[in-house]
Amino acid sequence: MCAYHALSEAEAIEYARRLPDLFAANSELVSREIGDGNLNLVFHISEPSSGKSIILKQALPYAKVVGESWPLTLDRARIESEALMIQEALCPDLVPHVHAYEPELALTVMQDLSDHVIMRRGLMEGNKYPLFAEHISRFLAHTLFFTSDLGMNQQEKKARVKQFVNPELCKITEDLIFDDPYTNSPNNNVPPAIQDAVEAVWNDKELHLEVALLREKFLVQAQALLHGDLHTGSIFIKPESTKVIDPEFAYYGPMGFDIGAVFANLLLNYAAQEGWSQDASSRQDFRAYLLNTVRDIWVGFDRQFRTLWNEQGNDRMFKTEGFQDAYMTRLLQDTFGYSGCKMVRRVHGLAQVADINKLEDAAAKERAQRIALQIGTSLIKHNRKAASIEELLDIAVKAVQ
Amino acid sequence: MCAYHALSEAEAIEYARRLPDLFAANSELVSREIGDGNLNLVFHISEPSSGKSIILKQALPYAKVVGESWPLTLDRARIESEALMIQEALCPDLVPHVHAYEPELALTVMQDLSDHVIMRRGLMEGNKYPLFAEHISRFLAHTLFFTSDLGMNQQEKKARVKQFVNPELCKITEDLIFDDPYTNSPNNNVPPAIQDAVEAVWNDKELHLEVALLREKFLVQAQALLHGDLHTGSIFIKPESTKVIDPEFAYYGPMGFDIGAVFANLLLNYAAQEGWSQDASSRQDFRAYLLNTVRDIWVGFDRQFRTLWNEQGNDRMFKTEGFQDAYMTRLLQDTFGYSGCKMVRRVHGLAQVADINKLEDAAAKERAQRIALQIGTSLIKHNRKAASIEELLDIAVKAVQ
Repeated sequence: MCAYHALSEAEAIEYARRLPDLFAANSELVSREIGDGNLNLVFHISEPSSGKSIILKQALPYAKVVGESWPLTLDRARIESEALMIQEALCPDLVPHVHAYEPELALTVMQDLSDHVIMRRGLMEGNKYPLFAEHISRFLAHTLFFTSDLGMNQQEKKARVKQFVNPELCKITEDLIFDDPYTNSPNNNVPPAIQDAVEAVWNDKELHLEVALLREKFLVQAQALLHGDLHTGSIFIKPESTKVIDPEFAYYGPMGFDIGAVFANLLLNYAAQEGWSQDASSRQDFRAYLLNTVRDIWVGFDRQFRTLWNEQGNDRMFKTEGFQDAYMTRLLQDTFGYSGCKMVRRVHGLAQVADINKLEDAAAKERAQRIALQIGTSLIKHNRKAASIEELLDIAVKAVQ
Repeated sequence: MCAYHALSEAEAIEYARRLPDLFAANSELVSREIGDGNLNLVFHISEPSSGKSIILKQALPYAKVVGESWPLTLDRARIESEALMIQEALCPDLVPHVHAYEPELALTVMQDLSDHVIMRRGLMEGNKYPLFAEHISRFLAHTLFFTSDLGMNQQEKKARVKQFVNPELCKITEDLIFDDPYTNSPNNNVPPAIQDAVEAVWNDKELHLEVALLREKFLVQAQALLHGDLHTGSIFIKPESTKVIDPEFAYYGPMGFDIGAVFANLLLNYAAQEGWSQDASSRQDFRAYLLNTVRDIWVGFDRQFRTLWNEQGNDRMFKTEGFQDAYMTRLLQDTFGYSGCKMVRRVHGLAQVADINKLEDAAAKERAQRIALQIGTSLIKHNRKAASIEELLDIAVKAVQ
């Protein structure tokens, strides 16, 4: 079973059986392929006699997006498993445990999280997660601080940069997030109802300059090991637990890109409340919950990040008076900018979001799309002027008034 | 001869004789070790019968600096030879030709440049090099543009970043340039005569913040493949030819660091004219030559870099209106900052410069040191406000008034 090939359900069982210390010898195992087949095979292997289960995730050598198929490196399985292990060392409760990684098969054996739900779906169902802000702000503070020059040996960090060079998956981000949405690209999926607003995006030169600057920063700034795709579809959640999954886009980039991904997806759901909420009062209530979550994440992140820096940072120059404040301000500004980019691409780019696209009422969907574009473009244009998280919340509030 | 060991002169001849197409079979070869023995062995191998000669440069597994010896990776020989080959492909006339590279021996066989002189020495002897500005601005524009995301495939660039991860040599820069000079570090060599001025540097918080920001950019900004140590001791010159040598500090960093290294070393010589010039008139004349050279380099670099961008850049987003101007302004600002850092460390840091240190007149030397510190600290403090190269020249002029 050494040469790479896509596993069958039976082979997945055979492989799982050979893993040490997981299942009883000769017990019955059940295998079910539960992936969507776009990028990976995902086998759920369970042992009915004990109730134990694991996930085998195998990368496929191609990606299927809207019917097309293109080759995609299997190295992303290595990147994903190595990133997960680094994240687990820093925040053991916030990522799935990796039992094993098999390079030849591009296969990662990890904790089964079937008792959690995908956060995007949870939010669409109107659930609130009061612990999420604490969990994700801790995840962000610890993974970003301790993989950066602030929090780790600066020579070892350079080796990490090398370990996580990830050209093919970065290319997807560079094109689909930072390029296509700002021009009439065949990769876009423009909803006809908002053609006018999308064309305004295509013609907005002030916006384009800011996006070009943010894209360049994504290309050159090796600040910390990012998750790289931290939307609410990459988060498994239940009330008492949050698990960040799928870091196959991990690479060394600007910290604000990860924080912005979280904010953008909360704000996309905020926009989509045009359709999900039953009435004005519940809409207002859920939107307030989402904005409070954004605020709590930033405030919690800022506090924890500075505490780690002050208590565990051992770089003399980074303790220079004024440096930390300048750094955190720039990080907030990047967060504004990347939040905006991550929203805009989800409205009329190639890959959109269920929060908006599953809305059945056409008028509500159109309003949600326009609100998302309004917030996204405002955040992008405001990014280099941002000085407080409250400005982000104000932009969101104004867009629905 | 495969396992690494330091070659003898006789072994160097034996090695050279086996190189194809260089020397006649069985002809007499002469070997002379001409390195300073601090970091590398440098063998000059010549064939008296033909007048042909080559250089064999072998990295030593340690560095000797002021009597101390510390281990230093042999991988720098690979980095140097690979950087030279990339530079040669871009500017064939401006670097020595690499005949061969032998990884096992950390040995590079390259063109003999004995007919050139080290530029630092040339300037100390009062020579002017009217073609230098054209040569070095072309070297900078081509090597920086074509190794950046602006001028090469952005996925291949990521592989280049990986190829040139260079932790040990970057560490030397991070400590000796961006840290030690700003604190009372045992690595400094503080000239007693300027103790007061050095202490002012140690206590200047505005300066420290700017240095911390520049150092952070050096740590995270993978903008282009830098030479990494582009001072006038890394340049071989004669009136009609310029050759940039010794890129063992090469890594992906901020472009302004290379441009700043050139400016800093011209300005250190400018400061040192306190002692080298015979009289006020020749001092003024040589200083004007140096400042004109700085201006010509920036203007030539800016023109060529923009031309390459406009004519050969194939990235849609980088053609966004306003982006190029914003990029070039930031590059100028980085150049100010790194010029300043490269000057300050040469006054009272570990490694200083002959331009100043060889001055025999103590008063002239002290004046030169104070001028260099004045220019360096002013450039650093001004860096984020800089808008034109003329401001750099003004700072230099004011420092000698």
